[in-house]
Amino acid sequence: GSSIPSQNASTVERIPLHRSVNLYPLTNYTFGTKDSQPEPDHSVSARFQRLRDEYEKFGMRRSVDAVLIVHEHSLPHVLLLQIGSTFFKLPGGELLHGEDDISGMKRILNEILGRTDGLKNEWHIEDEVGNWWRPNFDPPRYPYIAAHITRPKEQTKLLLVQLPPKTLFAVPKNLKLVAAPLFELFDNSNAYGPVISSLPMALSRLNFVYKE
Amino acid sequence: GSSIPSQNASTVERIPLHRSVNLYPLTNYTFGTKDSQPEPDHSVSARFQRLRDEYEKFGMRRSVDAVLIVHEHSLPHVLLLQIGSTFFKLPGGELLHGEDDISGMKRILNEILGRTDGLKNEWHIEDEVGNWWRPNFDPPRYPYIAAHITRPKEQTKLLLVQLPPKTLFAVPKNLKLVAAPLFELFDNSNAYGPVISSLPMALSRLNFVYKE
Ligand SMILES: [Zn+2]
Ligand SMILES: [Zn+2]
Ligand SMILES: [Zn+2]
Ligand SMILES: [Zn+2]
Repeated sequence: GSSIPSQNASTVERIPLHRSVNLYPLTNYTFGTKDSQPEPDHSVSARFQRLRDEYEKFGMRRSVDAVLIVHEHSLPHVLLLQIGSTFFKLPGGELLHGEDDISGMKRILNEILGRTDGLKNEWHIEDEVGNWWRPNFDPPRYPYIAAHITRPKEQTKLLLVQLPPKTLFAVPKNLKLVAAPLFELFDNSNAYGPVISSLPMALSRLNFVYKE
Repeated sequence: GSSIPSQNASTVERIPLHRSVNLYPLTNYTFGTKDSQPEPDHSVSARFQRLRDEYEKFGMRRSVDAVLIVHEHSLPHVLLLQIGSTFFKLPGGELLHGEDDISGMKRILNEILGRTDGLKNEWHIEDEVGNWWRPNFDPPRYPYIAAHITRPKEQTKLLLVQLPPKTLFAVPKNLKLVAAPLFELFDNSNAYGPVISSLPMALSRLNFVYKE
């Protein structure tokens, strides 16, 4: 309303311009291993059949993917999970029915990368990076709700997670955690798919601060 | 510090998640015309020679581009300037030496699209959409500072401008203002170039509110 002092209004306007995110060196993090985590679906057709079954019961699936960033020599790198020799994905998964984005993202990160020595990982959900919608029960996803699609089948929200300066991750034995520089991802949809290859653009509004 | 009450800390964390932007129908806006605005450079080689000359004197060029969004039947459309039959660009231009992003963006929008009837346009700079850097004195730009490039030659910052519910624009006669839906831009670098074609991804974190 008009009673808000101009000082406050200007502070609110300025918050999102020049948003800074601290990045720490990859070498600050330690990667242990833990038991394998099998994929929930054993084939592509089983995957879309389960999406279809669950959509009938619960409506649109809500998924979250984590964007975890480190630096090597002041170049930002995104942490990716490698499955086999050619498939990469962001650490993420499906929200439970009624689960909120932030609690779900933390639960899923603990399941995939959480340490197993009894100590807790600290996951600070810093910002929203983007959203992708799946209009049908098949692979294509788009960063908007397609025309004439009133009920998308899945929404995947990408969340930027601020890592602590140092920590230990435990990586399931069937996955490999790799750090990919932005220039490797950019315009490389063939190798990384449309979601991961568009991360450099989606992250370019952030002011990365390279810490030791 | 640790004296901040937890209520505040949680508010600050939640600001960027679910950022809403009001979109108004394209038909709310009126488009007049005004005198032609010639391009500052008469050839591609003249353009990069001027960049080179100015870089020697002033250092990196700082440019700003405006992302203006309207809706048609609840589909977001980005306003683009069309030059000739096949070239599209965002309304934008070069900042003056020492000019800040926000003042410069407003000055440039007034020059390109500002009404000429004596009334003022209202340009509210809402958020930062992304940045592209030009490593050399040639066309390629990237949404990150390339490795081993310590001094980029140009930085272009994309700013989201919240339009008022209704207004009048005056479009230079040599340009055409068009509204392109996100699905037309997506994955269409051939027609729109890498910057405009990646806007759907960069904007997908925003919660568009379709107003009348
Ligand atoms: Zn900034
Ligand atoms: Zn590297
Ligand atoms: Zn949101
Ligand atoms: Zn349209």
